[in-house]
Amino acid sequence: MLITSHIRDLIDTALYEDTGSGDPTTDILVEPSLTGRAALVTRQDGALAGIDLAAAVFTRFDPSLRARALMPDGSALEAGDRLAEVRGRISSILKAERTAVNFLQRLSGVATETKRYVDAVAGLGAQIVDTRKTTPGLRALEKYAVTMGGGRNHRRNLADGILIKDNHVQALALQGKSIGHAVTRALAAAPHTIKVEIEVDTLAQLEEALDAGADLVLLDNMSLDQMAAAVRVNAGRATLEASGGITLKTVRDIAKTGVDIISVGALTHSAPALNVSLDMVIEG
Amino acid sequence: MLITSHIRDLIDTALYEDTGSGDPTTDILVEPSLTGRAALVTRQDGALAGIDLAAAVFTRFDPSLRARALMPDGSALEAGDRLAEVRGRISSILKAERTAVNFLQRLSGVATETKRYVDAVAGLGAQIVDTRKTTPGLRALEKYAVTMGGGRNHRRNLADGILIKDNHVQALALQGKSIGHAVTRALAAAPHTIKVEIEVDTLAQLEEALDAGADLVLLDNMSLDQMAAAVRVNAGRATLEASGGITLKTVRDIAKTGVDIISVGALTHSAPALNVSLDMVIEG
Amino acid sequence: MLITSHIRDLIDTALYEDTGSGDPTTDILVEPSLTGRAALVTRQDGALAGIDLAAAVFTRFDPSLRARALMPDGSALEAGDRLAEVRGRISSILKAERTAVNFLQRLSGVATETKRYVDAVAGLGAQIVDTRKTTPGLRALEKYAVTMGGGRNHRRNLADGILIKDNHVQALALQGKSIGHAVTRALAAAPHTIKVEIEVDTLAQLEEALDAGADLVLLDNMSLDQMAAAVRVNAGRATLEASGGITLKTVRDIAKTGVDIISVGALTHSAPALNVSLDMVIEG
Amino acid sequence: MLITSHIRDLIDTALYEDTGSGDPTTDILVEPSLTGRAALVTRQDGALAGIDLAAAVFTRFDPSLRARALMPDGSALEAGDRLAEVRGRISSILKAERTAVNFLQRLSGVATETKRYVDAVAGLGAQIVDTRKTTPGLRALEKYAVTMGGGRNHRRNLADGILIKDNHVQALALQGKSIGHAVTRALAAAPHTIKVEIEVDTLAQLEEALDAGADLVLLDNMSLDQMAAAVRVNAGRATLEASGGITLKTVRDIAKTGVDIISVGALTHSAPALNVSLDMVIEG
Amino acid sequence: MLITSHIRDLIDTALYEDTGSGDPTTDILVEPSLTGRAALVTRQDGALAGIDLAAAVFTRFDPSLRARALMPDGSALEAGDRLAEVRGRISSILKAERTAVNFLQRLSGVATETKRYVDAVAGLGAQIVDTRKTTPGLRALEKYAVTMGGGRNHRRNLADGILIKDNHVQALALQGKSIGHAVTRALAAAPHTIKVEIEVDTLAQLEEALDAGADLVLLDNMSLDQMAAAVRVNAGRATLEASGGITLKTVRDIAKTGVDIISVGALTHSAPALNVSLDMVIEG
Amino acid sequence: MLITSHIRDLIDTALYEDTGSGDPTTDILVEPSLTGRAALVTRQDGALAGIDLAAAVFTRFDPSLRARALMPDGSALEAGDRLAEVRGRISSILKAERTAVNFLQRLSGVATETKRYVDAVAGLGAQIVDTRKTTPGLRALEKYAVTMGGGRNHRRNLADGILIKDNHVQALALQGKSIGHAVTRALAAAPHTIKVEIEVDTLAQLEEALDAGADLVLLDNMSLDQMAAAVRVNAGRATLEASGGITLKTVRDIAKTGVDIISVGALTHSAPALNVSLDMVIEG
Repeated sequence: MLITSHIRDLIDTALYEDTGSGDPTTDILVEPSLTGRAALVTRQDGALAGIDLAAAVFTRFDPSLRARALMPDGSALEAGDRLAEVRGRISSILKAERTAVNFLQRLSGVATETKRYVDAVAGLGAQIVDTRKTTPGLRALEKYAVTMGGGRNHRRNLADGILIKDNHVQALALQGKSIGHAVTRALAAAPHTIKVEIEVDTLAQLEEALDAGADLVLLDNMSLDQMAAAVRVNAGRATLEASGGITLKTVRDIAKTGVDIISVGALTHSAPALNVSLDMVIEG
Repeated sequence: MLITSHIRDLIDTALYEDTGSGDPTTDILVEPSLTGRAALVTRQDGALAGIDLAAAVFTRFDPSLRARALMPDGSALEAGDRLAEVRGRISSILKAERTAVNFLQRLSGVATETKRYVDAVAGLGAQIVDTRKTTPGLRALEKYAVTMGGGRNHRRNLADGILIKDNHVQALALQGKSIGHAVTRALAAAPHTIKVEIEVDTLAQLEEALDAGADLVLLDNMSLDQMAAAVRVNAGRATLEASGGITLKTVRDIAKTGVDIISVGALTHSAPALNVSLDMVIEG
Repeated sequence: MLITSHIRDLIDTALYEDTGSGDPTTDILVEPSLTGRAALVTRQDGALAGIDLAAAVFTRFDPSLRARALMPDGSALEAGDRLAEVRGRISSILKAERTAVNFLQRLSGVATETKRYVDAVAGLGAQIVDTRKTTPGLRALEKYAVTMGGGRNHRRNLADGILIKDNHVQALALQGKSIGHAVTRALAAAPHTIKVEIEVDTLAQLEEALDAGADLVLLDNMSLDQMAAAVRVNAGRATLEASGGITLKTVRDIAKTGVDIISVGALTHSAPALNVSLDMVIEG
Repeated sequence: MLITSHIRDLIDTALYEDTGSGDPTTDILVEPSLTGRAALVTRQDGALAGIDLAAAVFTRFDPSLRARALMPDGSALEAGDRLAEVRGRISSILKAERTAVNFLQRLSGVATETKRYVDAVAGLGAQIVDTRKTTPGLRALEKYAVTMGGGRNHRRNLADGILIKDNHVQALALQGKSIGHAVTRALAAAPHTIKVEIEVDTLAQLEEALDAGADLVLLDNMSLDQMAAAVRVNAGRATLEASGGITLKTVRDIAKTGVDIISVGALTHSAPALNVSLDMVIEG
Repeated sequence: MLITSHIRDLIDTALYEDTGSGDPTTDILVEPSLTGRAALVTRQDGALAGIDLAAAVFTRFDPSLRARALMPDGSALEAGDRLAEVRGRISSILKAERTAVNFLQRLSGVATETKRYVDAVAGLGAQIVDTRKTTPGLRALEKYAVTMGGGRNHRRNLADGILIKDNHVQALALQGKSIGHAVTRALAAAPHTIKVEIEVDTLAQLEEALDAGADLVLLDNMSLDQMAAAVRVNAGRATLEASGGITLKTVRDIAKTGVDIISVGALTHSAPALNVSLDMVIEG
Repeated sequence: MLITSHIRDLIDTALYEDTGSGDPTTDILVEPSLTGRAALVTRQDGALAGIDLAAAVFTRFDPSLRARALMPDGSALEAGDRLAEVRGRISSILKAERTAVNFLQRLSGVATETKRYVDAVAGLGAQIVDTRKTTPGLRALEKYAVTMGGGRNHRRNLADGILIKDNHVQALALQGKSIGHAVTRALAAAPHTIKVEIEVDTLAQLEEALDAGADLVLLDNMSLDQMAAAVRVNAGRATLEASGGITLKTVRDIAKTGVDIISVGALTHSAPALNVSLDMVIEG
């Protein structure tokens, strides 16, 4: 993971939030001359994301520290795995620790939750994708973490895909315009590099969307039977996306209906943190 | 909740992340002249946090919109409750919707998770507090959400409290210094407005800390029996904080041991989002 | 044009650049109590873009000023047209004038240059689109200006479309992979909301790209004859984009070849400014 | 050219604009382990400006890249000249390419346009200077580029020179004050380190300005005859600046009138980009 | 004083520094519904600067507050004068108080110190000017405060005046170049809107500088006798500036030597704060 | 002193303020190839603070410079001491000089003023602490400088300590609540890591505060006799802080009363700058 200047800014903001007013505990108790080494260790199985970022937190805080990842992002983790190593001033390691762990536990939490869904549909054709339901300010990082868990990304922002939702359709309906009209208008006016997707609730809407030439159709909160019927109706014409309240319990059955893509908001908005901590060896 | 310039910056960053490259779907399909009203609605029971912020997302994006909270932060929520109302250009409401909801679902998620813990210890003396295990960049907001769920805040950053952790003790041990020495040195050198807390693993360490005059003692990953014994040993001298891997299943038993404070990282690092969405009425 | 917080930041930066150290000329010579009104006027025919932004420069600098557009963006302009009006403190109008005009002359310059190309292909099917060859920091504004001149937008950034360029193909060639392979791999791995475009130099490459299922093909620096042949070979399968060194002199002949899209870097990187100035009436 | 932190910020903003949402094309097609070297090459004759900045774009994006200028800013360029070299990860070079070229083509475009004007007045005494009609946010860079083309800088912002324009005079006229009064007041009140310049339309105004002691006089849109007369009237007292609608066709005749300075807005607001591109050699 | 976006940023930064982590004291003790009014009052005689800025701190923190200056900047103050009034939520007034006062006490401190120097040379021709020895980040504000105390501004930054210092001369001396050469070269190459000043230590250097045509000469740490001699040597040719270790005790004697300008670093780097505080009336 | 990213931002802002528009004097007179070395030297006795920051200004401006502190922060200084050394391009050293010195003279000025107070109470028990009356934007730096002069820090912001001021008490009084009530409520509701301090004017208020269990009591503007009586009344129960208009003349007598802490706003708001300058040796 390349640590771009945008990521450096996120690191700086997070460090300032925690360390900006100083750390009297460490300043009072730890001699500045004390050096040592520390390891970021996972206490849980999971999938790794953000390890280069976590390492960069230490060196960004104190450029005299040396930090390096011991496993690459995307690695499957077992409890006890050592993820990264930091060497140098103990006082600096202690001050930056919480910020580094906070990034790592969140991104690896997203990767791990994604991996659970990906594993749940193993062997079936469906792909697990994320949504735009991300933490404000961290979208790029969380979308990256999804890919490290084996998932794929849906739209990164409002501009890299047309997605006609029920509210857009409702706005058109005021003018007596249908779903088919919405698709047709979007296909004509959309930037030529992006596809047109539309959300439907019923098979009738699906047929109208397909007739109008939609590239992708989002099946919103359909039952398993509806989804299976939608796959038959579609007959390979558009890419079909299942969406709405999908959980680890329901995802495999949904995949079995034959939909192409399953989008899961929980990958980013409700993933529990991975349990990660810092083990330290002080050298004196 | 006062929308300070710091919060305005967070809103701007989040809006830019989602809308900065434009919204071709809405631009193609929704007439700019179309107006209407929309409501943020919860689909789940819970506790509310961030409703003024969510309202401000709309007006920050388009100052011609009118947005107001219908319930104050801290309200107990039932599924179906209408939380805020927005009026004005439909196109602007649609563009800002995801950013507003992303803030609201996260902060109300934290408040709701906190409320679950607070309810679990109802009638016992223990207070539920958060940790510094927060989302990078959102600490102030998440700490606020904890209080809206009925919890209280632990340190906001490294400077507003002395907390001597095992790594600090380990660093002192190299010089032959004990826990008691750490407390003594911290009491002498700490800023005079903050208290001195120390983390202990054993009753022996607890006694040493108490003898040295610690204001607060964190009982790290102790068993229920150890905690009960710690409460007896303490005999009201210091404030006792239970910490480490506490869950909704274990929190009530821990509270029964008589500890004063129970700190729970999961309030902020693993709270699932509250299920919130936007209902729209288009007026034409 | 909605003045988002991102645009407000651009305005603030530009104002600071020009006025941040003060304006001794105006401070010495113009009484603060003096008020009046001023109009932004074009000295040239053209197309309008950025008029709301220009108005916002004045009110951002001094909120007591009143500024409003007199014509909407996208308007065709004749020399002498009055574009916007500002009222209030003369000293503030004078201080903000240069910054407002600098934005307006650049964006309207881009819109006007685009309109020249759009007019040149009138009646033919080809669309004029821009490129990513924009002024650093002003991409969103310049892409907007292109649409106000009647053009359409190509990719806004590297993420909202796959575009396989010669260097990507060259990198794959090292592994013995062909153009067809590149398209196939991209179709399989691309985010599902965006299309796959590939750049080709020859008709043989075009056929390979079409066989592999490319959504779009960029014809790089082809002759008119090659382009006409490409249109025949394509037979409506992919969208064809002509690109490379296109000028006002050549664009109509290129459009006649039947290509769907013509991308012109000069719309943004070499558009001369529109000649705009501020006429003032001082009221005393 | 020293890459100050202000310039680093401009680079970061531009990189984020283009690469902030990722580059799926390169991520899908180019192995991260692939390395090589690339050269920035001009396709046109011209003058070079911004080459150190362009090199810094690459290393700022990926600090593992090595980039260096092959020719210094200010060099006269022939089509085909190699301007800078970059080595390292191909994927990083490809991602940063557009941003680097966008800076370089604009700044070298300004330098080249300036050189055309400077060459046009060769052998005569007049100096070519720029104006404050610059791209918002890029003034310092564009003013630098003017000097690399052999031009000189007029005011960098409103504070480093007094320039009394027609609107200032008009404001004073309301109080019955003349041009001479304006000059006198400005000479008395101006910061002692800067000079006083005033814009005049007629020879009568020029005489009044000279009598009042103006350091510099701007001859606004005068005919060649008027300018020649102004030079005679001035008789070396003040520095004379010709301004207003000057083009490559008219600049030499204007210089021949004997004016000291010729200011040209087009140097910055209408300079076409220099045609620059990146040639790559992939090493595997 | 116009509250530009640059000043708003300074206010936001300062508010975040003090209030960013919350104000538990006020939150615990003051009901949010409590309103009242408060006045900023000076406890000392002096000169006023920054009162609009102080008022803006309150409204920037909480837009529902109403704040207005009661006296304009530049006013001579007597202890007890009421400077500004704020109305609204008591809790918001209390939270923003310290930030508002910190700006006001500093800027009025600078204005007051300046006024002491200006008063000390009353009736003599010399002007009191500041230096670039300002507080990092606050230069524009402090230079403004100097003018509110009756002083004038020297260079605002390195670009709005040529000032050749001893180190520049020393660098030239390596090449066998003299003070006269430095002046000559600067006059030839300086931007045409700014003047050329040079620092001299001796009368011989002064003569060389005058012969070369220096616009201004800085007399560095000269004795009163030397300065008087310098005034005679100069005979009105250049503007003479006395500089170096000037205090309130020495400034009048220096002014009597006939120098034109006296620059005093202490105006900005060592001005004591004005004693200002907030008086509150709570309305309930 | 660790140069965190927050400090780097302060440095960048200050450098931009002074050098952002260029330095024509140096550009005209000093060859870029000229190198040399320079030393920051104090012209006064005092205490050192900010020397690593001053060194970082040079390397931040031009990474090719080499700068290092010759004495650590906290050192007692004698006039003539060499504080830091810089080597490299003379032109870069000259351009960055003023910014580096401005930071250093201010921070060392604060440290030196603090040291005067600390020395004044030598041998007595009282500690000298600062206040929140700091320069907007520089609080962390100035609080650091206080510690380098031997002082200690009071609250860093509104959140790291409860301090009940007269206005808080006044707000409570409206509801018929007393000082004792304020203390009791604060003790119950305050974050558990911070202490509760209250400001009192009279001995009666002191007794009420002590009875309610205040951790700290601020004696506001009391006479020496009152303070001595307060110490007797307190009898070691709370920490006593003397505050209000304390000067170098009065501080020792106040310390003799037996108070524990003496807070002095003048440490930060009225400390005169330390007289520091740059001596240069040019090597050619």
